[in-house]
Amino acid sequence: MANEFEIIERYFNGVGPSAESTLLGIGDDAAVVEVPPGQQLVVAMDTLIEGRHFPLDTSPADLAYKALAVNLSDLAAMAAEPVWFLLSLTLADDDPHWLTQFANGLKQTADTFGLQLIGGDTCRGSLAVSVQIAGHVPRDQFVRRAGARPGDIVLVSGELGNAALGLANRQDGLELSPALQAKCSLALNRPRPRLELTPFLRRFASSAIDISDGLVADLGHILEASGCGARLARIAIPVDDWIETNDAYRYALDAGDDYEICCTLPSRHRDEIESWNISHPECRLTAIGEITEAGYFLRAGEDLIDLGKRRGYRHFD
Amino acid sequence: MANEFEIIERYFNGVGPSAESTLLGIGDDAAVVEVPPGQQLVVAMDTLIEGRHFPLDTSPADLAYKALAVNLSDLAAMAAEPVWFLLSLTLADDDPHWLTQFANGLKQTADTFGLQLIGGDTCRGSLAVSVQIAGHVPRDQFVRRAGARPGDIVLVSGELGNAALGLANRQDGLELSPALQAKCSLALNRPRPRLELTPFLRRFASSAIDISDGLVADLGHILEASGCGARLARIAIPVDDWIETNDAYRYALDAGDDYEICCTLPSRHRDEIESWNISHPECRLTAIGEITEAGYFLRAGEDLIDLGKRRGYRHFD
Repeated sequence: MANEFEIIERYFNGVGPSAESTLLGIGDDAAVVEVPPGQQLVVAMDTLIEGRHFPLDTSPADLAYKALAVNLSDLAAMAAEPVWFLLSLTLADDDPHWLTQFANGLKQTADTFGLQLIGGDTCRGSLAVSVQIAGHVPRDQFVRRAGARPGDIVLVSGELGNAALGLANRQDGLELSPALQAKCSLALNRPRPRLELTPFLRRFASSAIDISDGLVADLGHILEASGCGARLARIAIPVDDWIETNDAYRYALDAGDDYEICCTLPSRHRDEIESWNISHPECRLTAIGEITEAGYFLRAGEDLIDLGKRRGYRHFD
Repeated sequence: MANEFEIIERYFNGVGPSAESTLLGIGDDAAVVEVPPGQQLVVAMDTLIEGRHFPLDTSPADLAYKALAVNLSDLAAMAAEPVWFLLSLTLADDDPHWLTQFANGLKQTADTFGLQLIGGDTCRGSLAVSVQIAGHVPRDQFVRRAGARPGDIVLVSGELGNAALGLANRQDGLELSPALQAKCSLALNRPRPRLELTPFLRRFASSAIDISDGLVADLGHILEASGCGARLARIAIPVDDWIETNDAYRYALDAGDDYEICCTLPSRHRDEIESWNISHPECRLTAIGEITEAGYFLRAGEDLIDLGKRRGYRHFD
C-alpha cells in the first residue's frame, strides 16, 4: 500500500493555481506564505465527517467540493478573498480510484475559486476531511457577526431550504418533482459559496454570517454578537414554491447546509439592494425583516412566533 | 447534551496568550490575523487519530499536549516562532470531565509556547485532534529540507529512540528500569518541540527536518529534497545506554515520534556545535555523519548498512 508521502506526492501536488504569496508549498515540514502589504489574513477550519456531515454514498468529487465550499462560505461571510488551504484527509484505505476522483474534484474546485493547496497530511481512520482555509481582506474591511444595529435590514442571499429538501429526498424518501429534485440535489452537493458578495459586504454590510446551521440559529448568532433582536416576516423568506405550498418552512428556518449569506444593512443603503439584484440575478438579496432592540420574532400570517425559543441544527444536540 | 458553540465557548475560549497580531479570535465565521511587516507566515497541519497516533488510554492532557507538540515541532524544523493555531476536535461524546482535562492541557501547553487558539470546530465521531498551526519567521530566514550540500555535517538534537522505547514498554510490555521507563514515558507523552534551536537554525543550518517518522526516513527526506547522499556513524548516534547495550538501534533509526531536529551544517560552522552545547546543555546537538554526493549509508562496526533500502514508519505502509 502507498504511504502518506506517496499519496500526497501522487494525488495532491499542484492542486489549485500557484499564489504569488506562496513561497513554499507542499513537501516540507510546513508551508511558507506572505500576506501582501495592507492585507489581513482571514482563517477558518471546518471538518466533514462521514455519516454526520455527508451521506455515506457521497461521491468523492462531491465530498472534495463540499469540504472546500463550506470553508469558502466562511470566507465569503467575512468578505475575504480565498488564497490557500491545508488539507487533512483521514481514510479507511487508499483506494486509488477513490483518491483519483477526490483529487480531481479538489483540483477543479480549487481552480474555480483560485485557491492553492499548500500542505496538510493524510491518516488512516474513518473517513473525514478537514480543511483549513485562508483568505485576504484589505485592512479592517472584514465583516463580523457583531455590528448589526436596530433599524438595519436583514438580508439573505439566494433561496433557503433547498439543501435540506435535497437531504430529505435522499435520506427519507421525500417525494419531489424531477426538476425540484435536481435543484435540491445541487443545493445539497454543490452549495455555491457566495464569494461574489464580497464587494457588497465590505462596502455596505454591518454584519454577516453564512447559513450553515439554519437561518434561525445563524441570524441568532448575529443577534447575540451584536446585542440586538430581530423581527422577520415569513412571507418574505425566499423559498421554492414547494416549501410555501406545503407550509414546510422548517426546511428554510431550522435546517442547515444552505451556505447562503445572511447579512444586515443600515437602512440608508436600502437602494443598494435593488441595484445589486439588477446586476447579480444569480445571487439575489432579499430583505426578510429588520433588526430591533431586543427579542427575536417571526411574523407568520396571524401568528408571531418567538424564535428565541427555537434552535437550528446543532452538532451536539 | 451541549452543542458545538457551547463546547467552544465553555472550554476553549481564552486558550493561550492574546497575540498582538490577532484582530479577531474565536467566535466568528473565521479569525482575522495580521502578519507583522518583514515577517512571513509558516503554516502546518497535523492530525492525531486515536489508536493510530496515540494509545487508547492516553490522558486528555497528554493528548492535548501532543497535538500541539507535533505541530510545534514542524515550526521548530522551519525555524519559525509559534503564534496561533486552529483546532478541529472530533469526539465520540462530550464528557465534561474529559473536555475539562483536555482544555486544561491545551491551555497549559499554549501558554508555555506562546500560542493563541483563534478558531476551529468540534464534531461528533471517533476521537481525532487536528491542529493547524502558524508561526512567524523574518523574511526568507526559514529553513527547508532542501539545502544540504556535500561536506555538510549531519546533526541531531537530544537523544533518539526514547519515545519508541516508551511505546514498546507501554504496548508490548518491554521491560525497562523504573528510571528509564520514566524518561521514555516522558519522551513519548511529552516530546519537547525544539523551538530553542530557532536562532541556531536560522543562522547556520543549510537544511532541517523534525524526526517524526524515524531518523532514517526523515534524513532521507532531506537527502531527496537536497539531491544528496549521507554517510552516518552508528556509534555517534545519541541514544540511551540501554539501546547501545541491547544493540537495539532500530528504536533510534526507524521508529518515529522523537520530535528531535535533524539538520545539516556547512563544515565552516563546525565550531558552532560546541558553543551551542556549552550554552544549551538541555538541547545538545550531536554530529552523526556527513552529507555526500550520493548514497545513504550507516557505518555500524565493521558493517556498512545501505539505508537507501530501509524505510521508517509510514502511515500507509
